[in-house]
Amino acid sequence: MLHNLFEEVENHYNEMIEIRRHLHQNPELSFQEQKTAQFIQEYYKKLGIPYQSNVGGNGVVAKLQGDKPGKTIALRADFDALPIEDEKDVPYRSRNRGVMHACAHDGHTATLLIVAKVFHTYREQLSGNILFIHQHAEEVAPGGAQPMIADGILEGVDYVYGTHLWTNTPYGVIQTAPGNFMAAADKFTIHIKGKGGHGGIPHQTKDPILIGSQLISSLQHISSRKIDPLATAVLSIGKFHAGNAYNVIPDSAVIEGTVRTFNPELQQCIIAEMEKIIKGTCHGYGADYSFDYQKGYRPVVNHSTHAELIIKSAEKVKEVEKAEMISPSMTGEDFAYYLEERPGAFFFTGAQKENQFVPHHHPLFDFDERAMKIAAKTLISTVINANQLSL
Amino acid sequence: MLHNLFEEVENHYNEMIEIRRHLHQNPELSFQEQKTAQFIQEYYKKLGIPYQSNVGGNGVVAKLQGDKPGKTIALRADFDALPIEDEKDVPYRSRNRGVMHACAHDGHTATLLIVAKVFHTYREQLSGNILFIHQHAEEVAPGGAQPMIADGILEGVDYVYGTHLWTNTPYGVIQTAPGNFMAAADKFTIHIKGKGGHGGIPHQTKDPILIGSQLISSLQHISSRKIDPLATAVLSIGKFHAGNAYNVIPDSAVIEGTVRTFNPELQQCIIAEMEKIIKGTCHGYGADYSFDYQKGYRPVVNHSTHAELIIKSAEKVKEVEKAEMISPSMTGEDFAYYLEERPGAFFFTGAQKENQFVPHHHPLFDFDERAMKIAAKTLISTVINANQLSL
Amino acid sequence: MLHNLFEEVENHYNEMIEIRRHLHQNPELSFQEQKTAQFIQEYYKKLGIPYQSNVGGNGVVAKLQGDKPGKTIALRADFDALPIEDEKDVPYRSRNRGVMHACAHDGHTATLLIVAKVFHTYREQLSGNILFIHQHAEEVAPGGAQPMIADGILEGVDYVYGTHLWTNTPYGVIQTAPGNFMAAADKFTIHIKGKGGHGGIPHQTKDPILIGSQLISSLQHISSRKIDPLATAVLSIGKFHAGNAYNVIPDSAVIEGTVRTFNPELQQCIIAEMEKIIKGTCHGYGADYSFDYQKGYRPVVNHSTHAELIIKSAEKVKEVEKAEMISPSMTGEDFAYYLEERPGAFFFTGAQKENQFVPHHHPLFDFDERAMKIAAKTLISTVINANQLSL
Amino acid sequence: MLHNLFEEVENHYNEMIEIRRHLHQNPELSFQEQKTAQFIQEYYKKLGIPYQSNVGGNGVVAKLQGDKPGKTIALRADFDALPIEDEKDVPYRSRNRGVMHACAHDGHTATLLIVAKVFHTYREQLSGNILFIHQHAEEVAPGGAQPMIADGILEGVDYVYGTHLWTNTPYGVIQTAPGNFMAAADKFTIHIKGKGGHGGIPHQTKDPILIGSQLISSLQHISSRKIDPLATAVLSIGKFHAGNAYNVIPDSAVIEGTVRTFNPELQQCIIAEMEKIIKGTCHGYGADYSFDYQKGYRPVVNHSTHAELIIKSAEKVKEVEKAEMISPSMTGEDFAYYLEERPGAFFFTGAQKENQFVPHHHPLFDFDERAMKIAAKTLISTVINANQLSL
Repeated sequence: MLHNLFEEVENHYNEMIEIRRHLHQNPELSFQEQKTAQFIQEYYKKLGIPYQSNVGGNGVVAKLQGDKPGKTIALRADFDALPIEDEKDVPYRSRNRGVMHACAHDGHTATLLIVAKVFHTYREQLSGNILFIHQHAEEVAPGGAQPMIADGILEGVDYVYGTHLWTNTPYGVIQTAPGNFMAAADKFTIHIKGKGGHGGIPHQTKDPILIGSQLISSLQHISSRKIDPLATAVLSIGKFHAGNAYNVIPDSAVIEGTVRTFNPELQQCIIAEMEKIIKGTCHGYGADYSFDYQKGYRPVVNHSTHAELIIKSAEKVKEVEKAEMISPSMTGEDFAYYLEERPGAFFFTGAQKENQFVPHHHPLFDFDERAMKIAAKTLISTVINANQLSL
Repeated sequence: MLHNLFEEVENHYNEMIEIRRHLHQNPELSFQEQKTAQFIQEYYKKLGIPYQSNVGGNGVVAKLQGDKPGKTIALRADFDALPIEDEKDVPYRSRNRGVMHACAHDGHTATLLIVAKVFHTYREQLSGNILFIHQHAEEVAPGGAQPMIADGILEGVDYVYGTHLWTNTPYGVIQTAPGNFMAAADKFTIHIKGKGGHGGIPHQTKDPILIGSQLISSLQHISSRKIDPLATAVLSIGKFHAGNAYNVIPDSAVIEGTVRTFNPELQQCIIAEMEKIIKGTCHGYGADYSFDYQKGYRPVVNHSTHAELIIKSAEKVKEVEKAEMISPSMTGEDFAYYLEERPGAFFFTGAQKENQFVPHHHPLFDFDERAMKIAAKTLISTVINANQLSL
Repeated sequence: MLHNLFEEVENHYNEMIEIRRHLHQNPELSFQEQKTAQFIQEYYKKLGIPYQSNVGGNGVVAKLQGDKPGKTIALRADFDALPIEDEKDVPYRSRNRGVMHACAHDGHTATLLIVAKVFHTYREQLSGNILFIHQHAEEVAPGGAQPMIADGILEGVDYVYGTHLWTNTPYGVIQTAPGNFMAAADKFTIHIKGKGGHGGIPHQTKDPILIGSQLISSLQHISSRKIDPLATAVLSIGKFHAGNAYNVIPDSAVIEGTVRTFNPELQQCIIAEMEKIIKGTCHGYGADYSFDYQKGYRPVVNHSTHAELIIKSAEKVKEVEKAEMISPSMTGEDFAYYLEERPGAFFFTGAQKENQFVPHHHPLFDFDERAMKIAAKTLISTVINANQLSL
Repeated sequence: MLHNLFEEVENHYNEMIEIRRHLHQNPELSFQEQKTAQFIQEYYKKLGIPYQSNVGGNGVVAKLQGDKPGKTIALRADFDALPIEDEKDVPYRSRNRGVMHACAHDGHTATLLIVAKVFHTYREQLSGNILFIHQHAEEVAPGGAQPMIADGILEGVDYVYGTHLWTNTPYGVIQTAPGNFMAAADKFTIHIKGKGGHGGIPHQTKDPILIGSQLISSLQHISSRKIDPLATAVLSIGKFHAGNAYNVIPDSAVIEGTVRTFNPELQQCIIAEMEKIIKGTCHGYGADYSFDYQKGYRPVVNHSTHAELIIKSAEKVKEVEKAEMISPSMTGEDFAYYLEERPGAFFFTGAQKENQFVPHHHPLFDFDERAMKIAAKTLISTVINANQLSL
């Protein structure tokens, strides 16, 4: 049966590209994806698969009932775009100024729609049900996953899977991990409230630049002294802005940075250590401060059995040259929340164009469209295998 | 005779205010003071005192020959304004948008013109000559003093004096110092050239924010470890700018600051220590850098005999409640260069308005105009006393 | 057959305790273990197993030839003691003042001798050969493993195994890891050569205490900025000594610390970063330095198939309540060198006495002697299983 | 009269040397100077000048009444020695093992005794009274000055003077200052109470070495940011001790240092800033601390009229090649307390031996004995001049 399904994917490859390019030309920002949602709904309407719209916002969920009993397996694709100006010189370039599918969500959607069409064709041979989750707003916290889950879409679902077309990974490679796969990525902002004054009269000031400097030095000691060397966490400062004139000590300084973890306890520990260090340093120099810590998505933690299932399923796809377990990525995804509710796994589908690497979120971003076929086949293979799991 | 001269100042007080307010309404930026120079020239023309124009730029120098033999004494006033929008609500508010006499140079000029008029009236009784130096461009390095001196204005001059109307000092107070009076004020810029990257992948970067932080901490150790505790010097950072996004480690950081000294050897020592610290810190973290150090005006170092002369001369002015020696100020002035060529001294004439302190270079800056009379009388008294010096 | 071998271990348990306690009472320091080596040799002589003495120093190697063809499998036990005064109040307390078996090497030796006896009893049923490696000098670098290997003991050996009785782990638990198991543990010493002087005249000095302080702060940034967050490494300072008087800035400072890694490239990277930071910091403050880095044992990296084999083999021992893969330990062992030459694995045999934890290298150290039986049975089970491996 | 007095000093020069060498051979530690006190008492007894013994401890005070009315002027010399082994190879080397006059107090005493003898000879011509204060225990806080003053020795005294034979200054030079002359020299000790542990497991510790390092870096910022650049103060760390093993993070660290100031408010400000920085840094890293600050002698602040009087008086001594005002010294003296009670001044009498500089408190310390004559004559000249002061 797998062979037939794979063949059907090949048959629909042109349509898949067509869908992807249509979406690529018509990108919509997170939480504003009405037309994209409309497009998806119409596709399912035409297919004859029942769907729900406006799920948790702009989300669309379609459910294909197989003719035989079996598990209910959810597959998820996101469909929002980014506030980036498309600088590619291609016919399918974005028509919406300043908005761009620079993270392959157009490809995710095209892939999942074709997967739905293929399974629909073979629905008589299908055991169990398949839920197609088209999620809005992955790029911007708090994201679309949580409200869609809150709307009850995972009720009755046994397992959940998803993939990201990934240009950091070569075409032909599938990557996942048996546990931690993508990090929790948080943002923090520190305002140091010192006291400004004349550069020649420093003793009348509380120099926020020096305070910020000592603070950054000390914050970078958290990694080396407060985190288990066997654990994984990052604290990085991305921004330090203070002062406008070379000869005037400013009143205040702003520091912004990110913390990345895979473990809520370690995340809490880091926040607590930061709070202590910030308070100690600022008060030590007589200054005041504010500390704003915004938690981003939680980490994507795969269930190991399902990660292994993905590897095995991918190995059945002949275009897959390598299916491998990798170390976790320090990037983030709100797929995290599905995996907190249901067993499953997320994986990368290598989509780097030959001889050219353009990173995600870049104005020249594009991907090897053949990777959509690999993604589709690996998802199909995983669904088939997952039905045979006896967990 | 002093009594008569003082009386003459009183007689011309209204004119002095008029001149000052006219200049206040018509401020001109440093090196662009053509109309102001024209105004000054016309004043001397009308008085009948011979003058030279376009001295070292827009400078004007007038020379009054006394009828009796004696010393040649120079008095200096500067006449440029600042790129600040005048926000005062007064009838004599600046009419030039974005330009303002926010450092009392209008007052200096009015004072010196009336001093010239007064001495001219009594020229028959005057021993020696008086040189009236109207200097352009004090606010912006390299300043007007050096080119005017290069034009030979100090030839034949025995002593040189000047004053600054000073709102940090109360009305009625004259301040000077027997040696170091105002600091050399230099500017430096450090570019740290690290290597940017993803905030979650720090080991592939050379984090310029951390490098800059350690650097600032170490630069602040120069004061405590490399400068004689009995010497006076300041190193302050006024600006630290790096990064635009919380989650991206930037490529580079910019640090700007100032060094203030009274001693060229100490200044050189600090530059050398900075160079070492910057190189050591940047290279220690694998980064590169550029270090640009721009020397400002040299320090104003009074000659002690002349500083004492000013105190004694000021004490003869009945409006002067206190004439005192003070610790040096960390601010700068290009009067420094006159004192490197000729004996003399510079002093502050207290000009703070009652119950309101507005610092120099502030959009609401103004001063107590009565202070101009004190300045004029103290200069006159000093000229008379200086003629009796046998050095 | 395994059942019979296990039963034989039980039969010799009293002898095992007797041997262990005899050795415990007669500990010998690393590289001075003549009597212990003698004791081991006599044991093999009595058994009738041929052995070699003075292998790579005080090492003893015995070889049991099975009657059937098969693999040659090496088992290793170390037998040196530590310069610690035994403070336990037990009949088998050390009789050598200041020397103590505080790391269970006595137990390792007793275990391996009984394993040899048991296998010897069943030699007719044994396929292949077993090499019993009794290694001297594990506690002190450069250790006994390297010279014994240099003497050729691994020639003809297929696999090598070893265990450490481990009081950090509860009795009944076997622990190993599929790759990195124990760290490379290096030592470094930094001498900062500043310039001393009077505490009140700091500008004539190069203050090594401040230099050392900034250096330590910067060295602790290596972990956070120069090491992949997914990699494992530690840099810790254990000692900072400088100065003898509160009011005298000393000439120099001494800093000692340790670096722990699992990866020679990362180790080299850390050494290179340290060198840069030390040079940059010391030269930045005008001081000189020396940096001495002594590499300790390389990391113990298990071969995953063999680690899994140990888990399976341990699970056949009924006293083993749990056999688990664990995160690596930051401690070190020269078993590392055997695994660089031959496939195999090292494991911990839980030996914590009930309700009392005394760490290794402590004057009150002791272990649960029943753990020797578990160690013996797991080694025996591993040998039997390893013979069936087809790698 | 001055000429006669000076001649008398010359006449007694041999006796002066004799006394000095006798004392040099018989040094006594601070607070244990019974025999030295006895020696002084006997000298006054023989002279016939009334004296008091056991003043404020081992102090001796003699009072010479002149035959004419006039001021009462006190001259002070200290007489304690140091716990240093005399390593000089001279006939008058110390006979008390481990005790040495390594700070010229023997010379001070010899000088003052001869001054007393000289004035006694001319007592009939003397206006007013002279108080000879022989003070014990200058070297060790709390010193002898305070208890002697508490015993009332300054009652009726108008002015007080003293000198220190000073090997940092060339023979023939007299130095004083018109205000701050010698610093307040305080001692502090900081204990950082962290949490020790294995060097490979840092996250379970609170690393006191890193905390101490950041603390020292921050303490050194007090000078650059919290002290007026025009003020004088020093904070130096002399000692940092932590840890005994390279691979063990210790529980605690000890930091010792000194603070030098001339101004009690600045001293208090520094203590307060230190307290803040120490608390902030230690608590920031989760550690505890103790901070012990021991104030030493207060600063020696000369009264400017009296410092000028000393300069003028010294200029009358023909051996004095230069009498100069100098910048303050960062060293300390309990002469401070006399000057808090009465007008007066302290000065250095240059005593460096030609072509050889040995610092005070050094085992090879010695001084040019001719300097005692200069000291004696300058004191005598000062007494005569002070009597003519009309303050």
